[in-house]
Amino acid sequence: MNLRDQHVGGIGDTPHSAAAPKRSDAERNRARIIVAARAVFGRDGLNASMASVARETGVGVATLFRHFPTKENLVVAVFADRMKAYAQATTDALADPDPWNGFTGYIEAVCGMQAADRGFADILTMSFPDAQALESLRDQAYQGFVELIGRAKEGGRLREDFTSRDLVLLLMANAGVLSATGDAAPDAWRRFVAWMIQSFQAPARGPLPDPPEDAALYEAMRRASHNVNSPETGKRR
Amino acid sequence: MNLRDQHVGGIGDTPHSAAAPKRSDAERNRARIIVAARAVFGRDGLNASMASVARETGVGVATLFRHFPTKENLVVAVFADRMKAYAQATTDALADPDPWNGFTGYIEAVCGMQAADRGFADILTMSFPDAQALESLRDQAYQGFVELIGRAKEGGRLREDFTSRDLVLLLMANAGVLSATGDAAPDAWRRFVAWMIQSFQAPARGPLPDPPEDAALYEAMRRASHNVNSPETGKRR
Repeated sequence: MNLRDQHVGGIGDTPHSAAAPKRSDAERNRARIIVAARAVFGRDGLNASMASVARETGVGVATLFRHFPTKENLVVAVFADRMKAYAQATTDALADPDPWNGFTGYIEAVCGMQAADRGFADILTMSFPDAQALESLRDQAYQGFVELIGRAKEGGRLREDFTSRDLVLLLMANAGVLSATGDAAPDAWRRFVAWMIQSFQAPARGPLPDPPEDAALYEAMRRASHNVNSPETGKRR
Repeated sequence: MNLRDQHVGGIGDTPHSAAAPKRSDAERNRARIIVAARAVFGRDGLNASMASVARETGVGVATLFRHFPTKENLVVAVFADRMKAYAQATTDALADPDPWNGFTGYIEAVCGMQAADRGFADILTMSFPDAQALESLRDQAYQGFVELIGRAKEGGRLREDFTSRDLVLLLMANAGVLSATGDAAPDAWRRFVAWMIQSFQAPARGPLPDPPEDAALYEAMRRASHNVNSPETGKRR
């Protein structure tokens, strides 16, 4: 993923040198593309075209594709930082001495990350099997969330029938609220998320239909990421 | 909206004649377009292109645009029946002697209508100010729902802080779940909706952030319908 390895081995700067490292044109272009793509995806969502990213960057489409042969490559590079923050959020939440506060604070934080970035709102409910760095961060977040669930149930504040899949449903639903309300009602998601959190609270008010199987939900997430690469068919709405 | 008035005044058939009325080519084409568009929108959502509707119908794009000068015209024609069913659902729910059953049954019915048709899932949270027939049905549904809310609150089962805008949020959220789970987890929405309904139940478990203003929510719905006509910019995801 690091163009330095491929193109600039002879320059001699290292990432640790005190002065800002000189960067090749290729590296500079790559960095500029990522900045521009972050803005475009954040504004228009992941359905934004590669052409609009090239336009925003001020490079030709051919240059864009030389750096990122598929839109998935670009998406993964753009959201690497946010996935790190997402994984970090479970660590922060587990540090909360009150398990219920930790659990609800985590949900609010993640939904807030969705609200802050429309592209990231979708990424969270997609799976990119080929992007190992991204998926291992998602895995880390998942493991942390499972621990948060366990503690909140032990503390008696979280319903016993809550599962990690309910967070996925919530994130999918919140993406829908964010997409539909947009700038016209930018805080509407807060009320929606509060409704959900209150419902998660023990004791249960009644039985629920079963959650989807893990495999089914994973398949849905995988298909959604496919659509990122084929904007003309089966796009998410 | 009826092509009969424009094209076939001289044929002499009336909609009330016992035999199936003869129809002009124009009428037949129009009907075929609507059937095909219903299938395309139901499968791919409202972002489906006019070109794909023309392809599915087996007519040229020029013919399609002669019948429906904008995608909004087509969308409104396609979903007229479903909007009638949507308005009828409040009448049915108000006939339920148990106000809470009526209220929850209505929510489940409407969310089920969304699940049955991805295009309709979006229509419900869009506003088409120029489509009077559609908007008057939406208005009728709204008035009925306000009555359902009042009765369920009087019966003591619905939280006092529930507003009609919470149904709009729920429909936006459910559209997100449906879009993200698709055929891979087709019943996931049922669990999601059950979480929401349990949260609506009195007594309140805590305060909620304020709902968006009516005007803000209306603006969001109006913008979403705009995107139907300009598929290349600001599309809903």
